[in-house]
Amino acid sequence: MSVLDEYGAQREITIPAERPLTVFVDNRELVTLMTLGAAPELLVLGYLRNQRLVDSVSDIDSVTVDWDVEAAAVKTRAGIERFDEKTAKRVVTSGCGQGTVFGDLMNELDTIELPSSREPSARLSQATLYGLLNAMRLQESTYKSAGSVHGCALFRQDELLMFIEDVGRHNAIDTIAGWMWLEAMGGGDKIFYTTGRLTSEMVIKSAQMGVPIIVSRSGITQMGYEVASKLGLCLFGRATNRHFICYCGFERFDAQPEPAR
Amino acid sequence: MSVLDEYGAQREITIPAERPLTVFVDNRELVTLMTLGAAPELLVLGYLRNQRLVDSVSDIDSVTVDWDVEAAAVKTRAGIERFDEKTAKRVVTSGCGQGTVFGDLMNELDTIELPSSREPSARLSQATLYGLLNAMRLQESTYKSAGSVHGCALFRQDELLMFIEDVGRHNAIDTIAGWMWLEAMGGGDKIFYTTGRLTSEMVIKSAQMGVPIIVSRSGITQMGYEVASKLGLCLFGRATNRHFICYCGFERFDAQPEPAR
Repeated sequence: MSVLDEYGAQREITIPAERPLTVFVDNRELVTLMTLGAAPELLVLGYLRNQRLVDSVSDIDSVTVDWDVEAAAVKTRAGIERFDEKTAKRVVTSGCGQGTVFGDLMNELDTIELPSSREPSARLSQATLYGLLNAMRLQESTYKSAGSVHGCALFRQDELLMFIEDVGRHNAIDTIAGWMWLEAMGGGDKIFYTTGRLTSEMVIKSAQMGVPIIVSRSGITQMGYEVASKLGLCLFGRATNRHFICYCGFERFDAQPEPAR
Repeated sequence: MSVLDEYGAQREITIPAERPLTVFVDNRELVTLMTLGAAPELLVLGYLRNQRLVDSVSDIDSVTVDWDVEAAAVKTRAGIERFDEKTAKRVVTSGCGQGTVFGDLMNELDTIELPSSREPSARLSQATLYGLLNAMRLQESTYKSAGSVHGCALFRQDELLMFIEDVGRHNAIDTIAGWMWLEAMGGGDKIFYTTGRLTSEMVIKSAQMGVPIIVSRSGITQMGYEVASKLGLCLFGRATNRHFICYCGFERFDAQPEPAR
């Protein structure tokens, strides 16, 4: 596409190509997601999981994506119980939010259990945090040309397991959730990285996957802080290069302070 | 709140205090918005308008906000026609989206009319754009301490008419929409500024208010570009100081190019 800059120069740029994907569950329309479409089946799986519409991946028979009609058809083995009830409640969440947190998700926080902070795999040292941030720096430099997208990654300590970008950061995290679900991968020894803010939604999604540590390039919101504190998550924000703020969950963090300025 | 930084120093920071506000229309629960709460009545008005649930501000008898119960009670004069139908369809939009674009909003784009680009008040010169960006720079420096919030402003050329921040950028634009609606203020000679991305939702909201020009500190998405091109909006992105990209609507822009580098 041809644009104009401050020098009056016309130049060509590309913008991320988002597409609508309407999700049908057992032939009933559920939602339309706007996505870059890198891994639509995983996105749909993760969406169903993170909205708590389906309890187990084995309840799902198939997910079939057909871009010609911009639709994903989900077939369940036995239908979804209380479908109408679960999809009736809407919460427009703050920030870069998907905005539709269906049903009683917010009320089920008490059922979430994260690994103890005494588990070495559920802790993070400052040196390992730097390693993780460096991995993201290299990754992002590959993708940053696209612009206007959010990135999300899953780590085991500073080992990058998966990286995904989408126009909305919730699609990115949902896609990772779908992958973990499909692979029956536990979250207790994992760490999330996101370019987006630490909102309550991001914290809840991470907790639902059992991931006790989140690292964000951006800041935090009050609700994100409150939910994380309540659940015992460790949150790092404003994290780039060798800078960060640890907001809560200090007991999971092994600080190795930089020399004072 | 007490946080830890890379130097191992504990320091105190403040985070924006978002609160849930559940909107009831004629005693029926509609939605829960997460907001900083600077102008909740205007936010509710703008939300109803931008979701196209109410056609005219005169259809609304009152909006009463009670923070003790975190609720906003909207009383309409004659009820909302087809309430269930209008609130049934969900689109999870990309990016920092409210995510719930009710009903047939996307299908009503054809009814939108913007002023001709020949109207001087519906055009923008490069010098005036710089003036606008400078006004935002001064404004934001007042507020940037808060962090993790989105700002939105309404301009007439480079005259700042209103500035509002909220945790979600859609709440910010909805609040301005509510104000314009209440004041019966036309949008044809106005310009929107947002810190958020130029997504289709932002473009549609601007167009619904009749505002033909949007300036953003961030980038653009494909759907935002397509909708704006179709409607004849002029979009500026990556706009700070003396830098910007004009994505479309060149006919509304009076370029005064900088000397080449």
